Amino acid sequence: MGEAAEKYRAISPAEFFYKYREIAGFSSPARAIYQTVRELVENALDATDAHGILPDVKISIKRVDEIQEFYRITVEDNGIGIPPDVVPDAFGRVLFSSKYVLRQTRGMYGLGVKMAVLYGQMTTGRPVEVITSKSGFKRIYYFKLRIDVNKNEPVIIERSSWRKNRDWHGTIVSITIEGDWGRAKQKIKEYLFKTAIVTPYANIVALTPDDEIVYYPRVVDKLPSPPVEVKPHPHGVDLELLKQIISSHNYSSVEELLIKGFQSIGEATARLILQQAGVDPAKPPVDLTENELLSLVNTLRSMKDIRAPSTKAISPLGSEIIEAGLKHVFQPEFTYAVSRRPQAYQGHPFVVEAGVAYGGKTPLSENDKPIILRYANKIPLLYDEGSDVTTLVVKEDIGWDNYMITFPAPIAILVHVCSTKIPFKGVGKESIADVPEVRREIKLALMDVLRELRKYLSKKAREEELKKRAEHLAKYIPEVARSLALITSGGDKEAEALLLRRLVSIVSKRTGIPVTEIQGVLESVKIGA
Amino acid sequence: MGEAAEKYRAISPAEFFYKYREIAGFSSPARAIYQTVRELVENALDATDAHGILPDVKISIKRVDEIQEFYRITVEDNGIGIPPDVVPDAFGRVLFSSKYVLRQTRGMYGLGVKMAVLYGQMTTGRPVEVITSKSGFKRIYYFKLRIDVNKNEPVIIERSSWRKNRDWHGTIVSITIEGDWGRAKQKIKEYLFKTAIVTPYANIVALTPDDEIVYYPRVVDKLPSPPVEVKPHPHGVDLELLKQIISSHNYSSVEELLIKGFQSIGEATARLILQQAGVDPAKPPVDLTENELLSLVNTLRSMKDIRAPSTKAISPLGSEIIEAGLKHVFQPEFTYAVSRRPQAYQGHPFVVEAGVAYGGKTPLSENDKPIILRYANKIPLLYDEGSDVTTLVVKEDIGWDNYMITFPAPIAILVHVCSTKIPFKGVGKESIADVPEVRREIKLALMDVLRELRKYLSKKAREEELKKRAEHLAKYIPEVARSLALITSGGDKEAEALLLRRLVSIVSKRTGIPVTEIQGVLESVKIGA
Repeated sequence: MGEAAEKYRAISPAEFFYKYREIAGFSSPARAIYQTVRELVENALDATDAHGILPDVKISIKRVDEIQEFYRITVEDNGIGIPPDVVPDAFGRVLFSSKYVLRQTRGMYGLGVKMAVLYGQMTTGRPVEVITSKSGFKRIYYFKLRIDVNKNEPVIIERSSWRKNRDWHGTIVSITIEGDWGRAKQKIKEYLFKTAIVTPYANIVALTPDDEIVYYPRVVDKLPSPPVEVKPHPHGVDLELLKQIISSHNYSSVEELLIKGFQSIGEATARLILQQAGVDPAKPPVDLTENELLSLVNTLRSMKDIRAPSTKAISPLGSEIIEAGLKHVFQPEFTYAVSRRPQAYQGHPFVVEAGVAYGGKTPLSENDKPIILRYANKIPLLYDEGSDVTTLVVKEDIGWDNYMITFPAPIAILVHVCSTKIPFKGVGKESIADVPEVRREIKLALMDVLRELRKYLSKKAREEELKKRAEHLAKYIPEVARSLALITSGGDKEAEALLLRRLVSIVSKRTGIPVTEIQGVLESVKIGA
Repeated sequence: MGEAAEKYRAISPAEFFYKYREIAGFSSPARAIYQTVRELVENALDATDAHGILPDVKISIKRVDEIQEFYRITVEDNGIGIPPDVVPDAFGRVLFSSKYVLRQTRGMYGLGVKMAVLYGQMTTGRPVEVITSKSGFKRIYYFKLRIDVNKNEPVIIERSSWRKNRDWHGTIVSITIEGDWGRAKQKIKEYLFKTAIVTPYANIVALTPDDEIVYYPRVVDKLPSPPVEVKPHPHGVDLELLKQIISSHNYSSVEELLIKGFQSIGEATARLILQQAGVDPAKPPVDLTENELLSLVNTLRSMKDIRAPSTKAISPLGSEIIEAGLKHVFQPEFTYAVSRRPQAYQGHPFVVEAGVAYGGKTPLSENDKPIILRYANKIPLLYDEGSDVTTLVVKEDIGWDNYMITFPAPIAILVHVCSTKIPFKGVGKESIADVPEVRREIKLALMDVLRELRKYLSKKAREEELKKRAEHLAKYIPEVARSLALITSGGDKEAEALLLRRLVSIVSKRTGIPVTEIQGVLESVKIGA
């Protein structure tokens, strides 16, 4: 029995994510450069539109080494800026973030930019550089720093500041990593294009290593209303969360805890909950026993007559933006989009929006499914389509035949899920997990838009059918008119024309085909003959 | 401009994974119970077969609450046990593990069992219980503990120990979580079944909440040779890793650092590397400049004439186990398996093994691909097939027509990847990322087995073709024999029989169809007539 001694050790979150960087999307130089651009652009948008600022985002990707593929990626935004005392942690401490709150944001893990910093320092050894200032601040701050992987701490290499001469606010971040532009190029461009589609209120400009300028100008000036942070909803509570709320506040009674610690609970509901849970409303929360806590959690989670989670915290796109986006991409003959009513899963509000494009320049889809455009909290998802819940719905939950679609067909769908917490399958944010509530809503949203598509397609089919019938009848009308004219008036041309008009009117009345249509066909028959 | 103040905060790894538990596979009560069983079983197997012990694994899943779906999951192994001073951290500190080493193990993230503990305490509030002892230890130790999520620290609720009366060694872990047995049942059974297939040297017995006993007895007594920890390979080095090796050892010179800190580097290679990198061999590693470190990393990574990564650290299944497994599951008419030679990606050795089963009880596969059984480091992968690299290879890299396969067909393939680091796409360990080196090997392994399948299928087709031709010819032989007999001997029966035999022999010589086969057909023709 060759028993080897086990070496146990603890590693810091920085070391964990450095070691397993591929789970955050940093699996190769090509993926890393894509992921770095993404994370920086998403931070730039989160720093602007979520705070009522029309985004101006400037991206520059520059090759900085002749021999090796080292790229310096710089992203500048006009966002709210970062307080100087927070900058070191925000860029140099893994699991430090402003996004651990109940509010829709693109970022959510407190990982993205730190992963890019880590990837930079492990491949090129270059530190991250940050320039930032908040509105109203008198100075602009500059930091150059790296991450101490063992300690998960920022190491500041250089810092300075200077006076502002105008009220600039925003953040400029530069990270130098080993990349593979040749392989990443197409995905990065697709990412920017698909981002621009759902943020038409943003100016996005990128300078590529090929010295190409990719520019998506702002096309609307109206911002969606920014999401607002909310308290946890009772349906999303668990024992651990309840204990955290209790220990981080100083509520004097359980009743106060319920009313002030949660959304959707008023005095009456609080009493009802406490009665059902068998807990004394006046009891101080810190004195609750494990059994009382468990009973409280069970009651909170299962309360039926409670307001749904607040939707102030989420910010959908709306059907206009989706339709405009689809029209822009596919120039289809038919487009339709819906933004469904908010729903909730595990206490998190979410909204599903869907759109469909048909015909026009929509390319023929694959054998068993339409072209799928996936979005989550306004982020386009470009990888892992095969394991996304939308793909499951498309393949398993929709009877495409019922909507007059036989694949391959010129059809594309767009699905946008937004929520205070997107159930991503991984921290790389590439696909959404199969959560029953979300799956159901995606199905219903797609059925909504497909029903409209079916109406359009059956109207189109009916019109084509009518046209065929009109063409068929029209063949005989002139002949009949001529024969009748010969019998009744010896072939008088005027009589023949009159008879023709009458016949057209009779045929129109009998068949329901508009007179103009029949005349149109008669014209074409005449020309054809 | 409604600018909201950003709330920045750091969270502990425990809070991070509690908050985002779905990325570790704990997305619902059904997934959680499956994942808990998995993590405990994989720990049990890692504690045994990797240390030369034939595994005895006992699993019990028991419902412990009448009203709520609370399940107590207990897994017992006869493994090496855990030292008592390590137990609290091993079960109560996220990112604490014995598996952060270069050696093939089922576990790798230091997360699994802690996720189950966290899920238990957030759904049922019940702590984890551990009983363990190492071989040679005089006592057995008992712990009851929970995780302080904010601090990421174990909180010991109870501990005790007692004298052993026999040299028992192993570990028993009990975790109580909210589950959904009804929905998880099938996946858990599939998991156990597929695990048993690739660990025929293990005794696995499970008692389910339905009071059913699932038992996979040991069928072979031979253990594969346990993997051994190795040093990093030069091709897998990066700046960060090099700095870590330097800071955690006390090498006096860069030359010593290269020879002792890495595998596959001897004195001659070390000198060559240092010469190419332009670094003084005698320089103390701590004095290396950033540029020297970078140059060293680049030289190490790109060294061509260097021994491939050591394969002592990995432990493949071997083709016999794969073939036996496939035969057991599908009772196919044809099976074949290969275990390819070791390769490396990013400095990690890996081996790809593949098998194919055809016909017999193999069910008809889907429209565009065979049935796929996926394994990684002896773990069956049951979810996220759509995004796995094997699925990509099957769909994009293999020309199935070339192997005489037209879907749907009665064909199943098995792919096993083993490595010191499986490039999983997520910490839930459900699918393998598209790493070019791994993808290539999977493709080659499948081509190896499919070539054998093609040989079998074309032999089968040839035999069927021959049989058809024999049948065709055989129709005429008796007639010809009769006519000839009539001409030559006035229809003498004996002469006819002789002629028949001669004709059969001529036809056999000309066509290559064995005499016996033609006679067989003649028999059947006679009977038919």
